[in-house]
Amino acid sequence: MSYEENTVMGRNAVLEAFRSGKTVDKLFILDGCQDGPVKSILRESKKQSTLVKYVSKERLDTLAGHEKHQGVVAITAACDYAEIDDLFAAAEQKGEDPFFILCDEIEDPHNLGAIIRTANLAGAHGVIIPKRHAVGLTGAVAKVSAGAVNYTPVARVMNMARTIEKLIDRGLWFVCGDMSGELMYQQNLTGPIGLVIGNEGSGVGRLVKEKCDYVAAIPMKGDIDSLNASVAAGVLAFEIVRQRFNATK
Amino acid sequence: MSYEENTVMGRNAVLEAFRSGKTVDKLFILDGCQDGPVKSILRESKKQSTLVKYVSKERLDTLAGHEKHQGVVAITAACDYAEIDDLFAAAEQKGEDPFFILCDEIEDPHNLGAIIRTANLAGAHGVIIPKRHAVGLTGAVAKVSAGAVNYTPVARVMNMARTIEKLIDRGLWFVCGDMSGELMYQQNLTGPIGLVIGNEGSGVGRLVKEKCDYVAAIPMKGDIDSLNASVAAGVLAFEIVRQRFNATK
Repeated sequence: MSYEENTVMGRNAVLEAFRSGKTVDKLFILDGCQDGPVKSILRESKKQSTLVKYVSKERLDTLAGHEKHQGVVAITAACDYAEIDDLFAAAEQKGEDPFFILCDEIEDPHNLGAIIRTANLAGAHGVIIPKRHAVGLTGAVAKVSAGAVNYTPVARVMNMARTIEKLIDRGLWFVCGDMSGELMYQQNLTGPIGLVIGNEGSGVGRLVKEKCDYVAAIPMKGDIDSLNASVAAGVLAFEIVRQRFNATK
Repeated sequence: MSYEENTVMGRNAVLEAFRSGKTVDKLFILDGCQDGPVKSILRESKKQSTLVKYVSKERLDTLAGHEKHQGVVAITAACDYAEIDDLFAAAEQKGEDPFFILCDEIEDPHNLGAIIRTANLAGAHGVIIPKRHAVGLTGAVAKVSAGAVNYTPVARVMNMARTIEKLIDRGLWFVCGDMSGELMYQQNLTGPIGLVIGNEGSGVGRLVKEKCDYVAAIPMKGDIDSLNASVAAGVLAFEIVRQRFNATK
C-alpha cells in the first residue's frame, strides 16, 4: 500500500479538497490575505476545525514546492481521524478495559508512526494526538506505521490536558513516562488506562503531567539522558501488557 | 556535537584516509579497475579488513555526488569501532555479567542509532554489528544515538554466527527475538547474555537463530506483523533489565 503525502495548493483546489470531504491537517494562508475566495476556504475550514496558520510568501513558496499557490496551501491527512468514542467502542467490542496511548506533542513522523505500530501490537484501542505542535497523520507517519493506521484509530484533540480530564470522568487512570517518577514495575498499571508519551526534546508538558495519576520511570543505567520517544513508548506500553497479562493469569 | 558523514573520493584522498588511521566502513572501486594506485589502496584496506565492493561507474558517480572520484570512493565511520574484548572489559569494570546487543543486519540508520541509545540506557556493555548487509557507524547513526556512541562500544564482525559460537565459549547465553518463540516473561534472561535483534524485513537469520539458546517472543495482540526493530530491541532489552532487577532484589 502506498500513502501519499498530500499538499494541495491554489484556491479552487483547496476549496474542492474541503468540499469533497478530505481531512485537512493544516491550512496555510498568506499573511493579510482575506478576500472573498479565501473567506470561503476559511468558512469550510471552520467546519472541520482545521488548524489555520498565516505565513509569509517565502514559507508558502517552500510549502508549495515553488509552484503557483495563490496564497493558499493545504496539507491533507493520509487517512481519516477517529473520534474519542471510536476508541471506547474498540475497547468495548473486544470486551477489554480501555487502553489508549496519548502522544503529547510528538514531532517526528518516525516516532509517531512507530508509536501507532506499537499501539496496535500492544493491544491498545487507539492513539490520541494534539492538533498543535505535533505531526499529524501524514504519508510518512502512515508508512512508518507499517499499516497500523488502518486498524488502530487515531483521534486528534485541541487540548490534551482537558481531554485527559474528560477521560478521567469516563473512568480512565493516567500514567505518563518521566524519569522523575517511581519505577514502572512498582506501579499498578492494570485497569482502564491512558499512557502519555512526551515530546522528543522536552518530555511531558507540566499541565499534562499534573493531570496524571502516576508518573512511571523506566530504569536507566546509562550515560545519556533519555530513550528515543518511540522506544520509551514501546517499553512502557509492554510493561502495561505484562501487568495485564499477569492480572489475567 | 556534530557527526560528519564522510565520503572520501579520489585515489590520493582515499589512500591518505587509510594511512592517517581513519576507519573506513566501506570501499567502493570501479569494476575492473586494478592499476598500481588502486592496488596500493587495496593493500591498505586489507590491513583494516575493510569491506570492498566493485561497482559500476553510475553507482560510483551517485556515491560521489557526481564529483570526480577517479574510480575510488571510501565511506569513513563517524567514530571508531571497538573490539569484542572492549565489551568484556566494560562489563568487568562494572562488576556485572556481560550483556551485549547483537544486531543481525540492521539496515536503517534510525534503528541502529536508537538501538545503541537503548543499549546505553539499558546498561548493556556494548553492541555488535556485522560488516556486511548492515549499516555501519555513519554520521546519521551517531546522531540518532543521541551521544550514546561515545559511551557504548560498538564492535564489527565478519560473521555473526561464528561470533556467537566464540561468545558461547566465553560463557554467554544467547536469546533472539522472534515471534516463533516462547513468551519472554517465561524465560530466564538473567546471567551473561547476548540479545540478538533481526533485520527489519526478514528477522533473525536461520544460521544465527540456530545458535541461540532461547527464542523469545514479545506478546502480540494486534493486526499487523511486527514491531519496529528498535522498539522490539527496547522491549526485549528492558525485559532483561527487569529480570536482572528482580534477581538482585
